[in-house]
Amino acid sequence: MNKMVKTIKEAITLSGLKDGMTISFHHHLRNGDMVAVMVLEAIAQLGISDLNVNISSVFDAHMPILQHIRDGVVTGIETDYMGGMVGRAVSEGILEKPVTFRTHGGRASDIIRGASPIDVAFIAAPTADCMGNCTGKEGPSACGSLGYAFADAMYAKKTVVITDHLVDYPLIGGSIGEDYVDYVVCVDKIGEPSGIVSGTTKITKDPVGLVIADYAAKAIDASGLLKDGFSFQTGAGGASLAAAKYLKDIMVRKGIQGSYGLGGITAYMVDMLQAGCFKALYDVQCFDLDAVKSIKTDPRHMEVTASHYAGPGAKSSAVDSLDVVILGATEIDTQFNVNVHTDSNGYIMGGSGGHSDTAAGAKMAMIVAPLSRARLPIVVDQVLCTSTPGATVDVLVTQCGIAVNPLRQDLAERFRQAKLPVVEIHQLKEMAEKLTGVPKKPVHGDRVVANVLYRDGSLLDQIYNIPVFQA
Amino acid sequence: MNKMVKTIKEAITLSGLKDGMTISFHHHLRNGDMVAVMVLEAIAQLGISDLNVNISSVFDAHMPILQHIRDGVVTGIETDYMGGMVGRAVSEGILEKPVTFRTHGGRASDIIRGASPIDVAFIAAPTADCMGNCTGKEGPSACGSLGYAFADAMYAKKTVVITDHLVDYPLIGGSIGEDYVDYVVCVDKIGEPSGIVSGTTKITKDPVGLVIADYAAKAIDASGLLKDGFSFQTGAGGASLAAAKYLKDIMVRKGIQGSYGLGGITAYMVDMLQAGCFKALYDVQCFDLDAVKSIKTDPRHMEVTASHYAGPGAKSSAVDSLDVVILGATEIDTQFNVNVHTDSNGYIMGGSGGHSDTAAGAKMAMIVAPLSRARLPIVVDQVLCTSTPGATVDVLVTQCGIAVNPLRQDLAERFRQAKLPVVEIHQLKEMAEKLTGVPKKPVHGDRVVANVLYRDGSLLDQIYNIPVFQA
Repeated sequence: MNKMVKTIKEAITLSGLKDGMTISFHHHLRNGDMVAVMVLEAIAQLGISDLNVNISSVFDAHMPILQHIRDGVVTGIETDYMGGMVGRAVSEGILEKPVTFRTHGGRASDIIRGASPIDVAFIAAPTADCMGNCTGKEGPSACGSLGYAFADAMYAKKTVVITDHLVDYPLIGGSIGEDYVDYVVCVDKIGEPSGIVSGTTKITKDPVGLVIADYAAKAIDASGLLKDGFSFQTGAGGASLAAAKYLKDIMVRKGIQGSYGLGGITAYMVDMLQAGCFKALYDVQCFDLDAVKSIKTDPRHMEVTASHYAGPGAKSSAVDSLDVVILGATEIDTQFNVNVHTDSNGYIMGGSGGHSDTAAGAKMAMIVAPLSRARLPIVVDQVLCTSTPGATVDVLVTQCGIAVNPLRQDLAERFRQAKLPVVEIHQLKEMAEKLTGVPKKPVHGDRVVANVLYRDGSLLDQIYNIPVFQA
Repeated sequence: MNKMVKTIKEAITLSGLKDGMTISFHHHLRNGDMVAVMVLEAIAQLGISDLNVNISSVFDAHMPILQHIRDGVVTGIETDYMGGMVGRAVSEGILEKPVTFRTHGGRASDIIRGASPIDVAFIAAPTADCMGNCTGKEGPSACGSLGYAFADAMYAKKTVVITDHLVDYPLIGGSIGEDYVDYVVCVDKIGEPSGIVSGTTKITKDPVGLVIADYAAKAIDASGLLKDGFSFQTGAGGASLAAAKYLKDIMVRKGIQGSYGLGGITAYMVDMLQAGCFKALYDVQCFDLDAVKSIKTDPRHMEVTASHYAGPGAKSSAVDSLDVVILGATEIDTQFNVNVHTDSNGYIMGGSGGHSDTAAGAKMAMIVAPLSRARLPIVVDQVLCTSTPGATVDVLVTQCGIAVNPLRQDLAERFRQAKLPVVEIHQLKEMAEKLTGVPKKPVHGDRVVANVLYRDGSLLDQIYNIPVFQA
């Protein structure tokens, strides 16, 4: 048995890929990913068309997909996140079929339960052996965890591993096993290291961000959840990271030994592990080089699959045991619904990722955001797109106060006792509007360009096209 | 969400177990396993009956299953191996329904592809957390790998983890993830350490066994397969282990760096890893304490699932890359078919385990056996039960010479060049019969007590009842 094939084209041909099928990619190489573009180019050259592309996240590095859409090679996209450049084209109507947005957990569970079948999965593997055992922890394009790729590899009809670092069989410390892999291709380069991981993720230096971070850390301290066994997830945004830094200081000062840090992992979470704030990290995706190094060398820093991380169809997942998650928002409305899919003009420039998964699981889901951004208020009457339902969002922290979901009077009471500036979310909206004025609702067209599915697969919202007025 | 339940009975009730369903167990606790008996006792007390039991191996420790068969609690058994005590009762007809025998690889693949559905899987877990993340590497009943249990846990409708060592969430270094687990029960004790692993597995001291081992090692050396990258599996029998010891000496002397050792792992394979004979071990089951210690501490010593080990339905498995396997036999016939299911009287006292999986995968499958045992010849005209088809068996090594399957003239030629005593298998049969006489065929009844499935699920052979003559 020999799974090694010389070229991506050969692997595609052997996989039996035909017009109308679904292919999949994962996004651990982030904005350094060269694999999706490489595969789509080969597919185009082979004359295969009308493909549905299920890709866990779309980055600006994937811009060439737009030409493949124009050429009819790609006619559908399913994803959990879409960066601004491809997002703009989708918002302007480049695809006839609406994009399907899922959450990171929902995507894995839909693949596993057969609601989102994949014909051919392409796994970008920083290290692999000739039978397809592979890992993200080693190699010139090392990205750490391959968490999102497991469901693809395990449930696709055919699985192709594409690597630029082939090692002798058997790979030691493999992630995805050969039992799921049909073909292996070795290419010169699967990713641009500078795009795969930033050198280090950086704390904000913006004074507004630091005030928000300080309130966020103090609110967590006051929540009653910060005690031995505490578990925590935070995003990689500057204010979120600053909050993690402040939280670490509190935990170290009070001698609190948490249980686990979760999510996309940054240097700050690794630092908290090493400082004894956590006894373990569950890592579905590494955000920086320190995280990649840590997952490779520290057994307490564990790779998790997307299903184990956040799958709503799993018997349980790590988000179900989560105490606190800090999340961002482009908009939040007075019912605490959060938009992370579109910007204030209605253009797609994001997606849920693990946002609504963690909000649903965590005992306290906290949004950190400035009162306004680019002269637009963050708090609105109704979000343009509901990415995460307000019922699962507990707290909004801004530089001008902390608004607590009315469902969580217990938290509001604790914050007040800790002398934190608790305000009504309507007050935050008014404060913002005093600064920015009341913005006009952006104009959208009447064609649905994206369906936003909640983590359980139900339709949560729809995103409409943005009309393009030509001069 | 709380998966912890107080008693096994409560877990059974919550699982929805009903008359006529299938439950499963794995056998990593070997003859020290207390879980299968504990669960069957609870089921009996709950009044549930007519159960089909899919258990990866049946040991003498499972004798109480016989009473549950008599009581109608258990009416079917599917397994890969059945020890002599339960085997005798089955051979004498205690079950109305024939036992289904599979191979270790075939069992996993049949579970995965849905050909062998499980309603409730019971996982004996030496260490677990409250959400069901579990491992065999730690705890008072540590058994090392949980390789055979993965398919059960992943594909059963309900999965119950039973442990005697509960640790804080999240378990570090877990094997089976919480995403597959419904309930967790903590009991006083899941196994008798002395029965789980022998202190150390022992090389034979029998001079006949040592001659066989010496020939076996020399034959491997002469085969052309013993070079850098060499991969190897051996059983835990005394002569097989002695062969491994001699092989190690050859590899060390010649400076050969193999790739991996496979299978049920013993101290001798660990020793070969540490001596540089292999760069990795793939471990589906630990046979002794040294193996348990090694898999816990050495990252090169890797746990594999049964599917990754030997699943015929997997895209590939480790047996597909295997160079040489050394296996035992209770009988081998002149067509090289091997029986490991019954003794020479026709009584069930074994099973394929990974026998036919590895024989099918390995470039050279070598049977080691003495010319006769208990005054019965090992080589016969036709085995009582075909466990492993002769087409996949290459060599028989006895103390009186080495017989090579006519399909492998290449090997015979290499052995002759190395001055090894190559003989025809018919000659070995004649030599044995000169010593022992020609044995009478045992008498069997006309009722099928077991169907032996080949690894692909096809019917390979059937085992008949042994009539019991009462005085």
